[in-house]
Amino acid sequence: MEIAIGIDIGGTNTVIGFVSKDGTCMVEKSASTTQYADCADYLHTINDIILAELAAHPEWKLCGIGIGAPNANYHKGTIEEAPNLRWKGTVHFCNDLAAYFPDVTIAITNDANAAAMGEMIYGAAKGITDFVVITLGTGLGSGIVVNGDLLYGHDGFAGEVGHTTVFPNGRECGCGKKGCLETYASATAIVRTMSEILCNSNKPSRLRDIPYNKMTALEIEKALKEGDELAKECYEYTGKILGMKLADLVCHTSPSHIFLFGGVAKAGDIIIAPTKRAMEENLLPIFKNKITITQSGLLNENAAVLGASALVWNEIAKKNNEK
Amino acid sequence: MEIAIGIDIGGTNTVIGFVSKDGTCMVEKSASTTQYADCADYLHTINDIILAELAAHPEWKLCGIGIGAPNANYHKGTIEEAPNLRWKGTVHFCNDLAAYFPDVTIAITNDANAAAMGEMIYGAAKGITDFVVITLGTGLGSGIVVNGDLLYGHDGFAGEVGHTTVFPNGRECGCGKKGCLETYASATAIVRTMSEILCNSNKPSRLRDIPYNKMTALEIEKALKEGDELAKECYEYTGKILGMKLADLVCHTSPSHIFLFGGVAKAGDIIIAPTKRAMEENLLPIFKNKITITQSGLLNENAAVLGASALVWNEIAKKNNEK
Repeated sequence: MEIAIGIDIGGTNTVIGFVSKDGTCMVEKSASTTQYADCADYLHTINDIILAELAAHPEWKLCGIGIGAPNANYHKGTIEEAPNLRWKGTVHFCNDLAAYFPDVTIAITNDANAAAMGEMIYGAAKGITDFVVITLGTGLGSGIVVNGDLLYGHDGFAGEVGHTTVFPNGRECGCGKKGCLETYASATAIVRTMSEILCNSNKPSRLRDIPYNKMTALEIEKALKEGDELAKECYEYTGKILGMKLADLVCHTSPSHIFLFGGVAKAGDIIIAPTKRAMEENLLPIFKNKITITQSGLLNENAAVLGASALVWNEIAKKNNEK
Repeated sequence: MEIAIGIDIGGTNTVIGFVSKDGTCMVEKSASTTQYADCADYLHTINDIILAELAAHPEWKLCGIGIGAPNANYHKGTIEEAPNLRWKGTVHFCNDLAAYFPDVTIAITNDANAAAMGEMIYGAAKGITDFVVITLGTGLGSGIVVNGDLLYGHDGFAGEVGHTTVFPNGRECGCGKKGCLETYASATAIVRTMSEILCNSNKPSRLRDIPYNKMTALEIEKALKEGDELAKECYEYTGKILGMKLADLVCHTSPSHIFLFGGVAKAGDIIIAPTKRAMEENLLPIFKNKITITQSGLLNENAAVLGASALVWNEIAKKNNEK
């Protein structure tokens, strides 16, 4: 059986999945990321895990290894200045991994691009050539697909929609800028917005009993479902801003579908309905009523690992097309 | 000699250029656009003009016809609901033209995409795979190139950066929305901004003697060069808004170069310097100091016709690659 390995490198942990062509994750292993100050030691551990698993499954044929990592550069095969990783500067990840696995396809991209690739190969975007995946988690990531392939741009870093500007001099963002979209539309942003609404309104809300640091998007979603008006206002506002910026996104790449992914997307219509409404309000007439906004097809899967593994099948398909 | 015809369809006039592979426009003819209520009659005239010219130049080998037109759809070969043309609804332009010229390549796209194609084939973007052309004229158009080809999106209408939102509920735009970029950055927008500055300031300016309807971006540029402080403020503000939105654009497609085209771009550093400054201020760290903003290489040419003709060479190259 042909197998692609997907490696999802998080700040704390790394997950390694052994995935078949139809998107079934046969085995999942994990390792510490944070434990290794030196990437060479980390790669040594990853290699051991992979070799042990391959030895246990002689029926597998390893086709390649795909990696999803913060600040990953597809063109160069590097991880560059990732704020949440201990490896500083530029790590030549693909090259270094290829020393262990010289005969298979190896490719790396950032988390959101990997999510988009997973959506295209295994998920709801099969057969769709122009779409976007927006990941709504701690931050807001985006993977943009045009003409059936990921949009990387000249330097490999395209698709940073979370850092477009909503309000100049708006909320402080982790990137050093102010007013970025991810400070208004992400799980963290929803908590910020809730806090703002609580201070501006006099309406009662049980959320007033939760300290800022304990508040979560999920808690606000629960309050909304219990009829909390301010929680509703919070999600409406989030959708309004997200929808407005998605209308901008459509002006750039004109996708047929936008898939929402990540914890916030699990709220379904609570976030999708106001987002869609605001997007339609802000669209040019030629774009109105023809773009689908919907949940990712991989919401309940380990999409990060699947997406990383999907990179492999896509690279192989591209190579075959070139022949 | 191999010739590609470029047809630039404007609201009033149509220009037809006979262009060699190196981008020399051998002959240029024009016809009325507005005279023909029926596109069939218009095409009849265009055909006559082309046949007469080809008969006069038996040494030419016609390779194809490229068309630049408002609201043109590359995928469908149509012009759809163009506000400035008399032909309403959907005109199947490429099909209808192919009835006259069945044996050559025919392709259509909008004006800004044609400008980007011209830049790539004949202009300053030769060999550059990821760039954007921003046309600053009556409106703001954009042609986005990724991976060496125009970005069309699922419906053929990608690249409408002029209609991204700067200020929700801002200035009224011709598209029916409010606050679009082209109401803050275009020749028309510069006049609007000047008017706003004149009313907000008490400083003297000779521009106070010019009525709104007589004011032009060029007149304001002249005043700036004569030392008019408010005119300087006007161009600075225009660059500030344009640069901020170009930083958003970079977050989407990460181009290496942005070329400014159209009347306003002829002002050179007067518009480019503040635009570049504002873009850099608003860029994510990973994008800083690596994007070139510069004038189009075709500023003094009939770029609309050249761009339309360039479509032909690009289509032929794409067909050859597929073989």
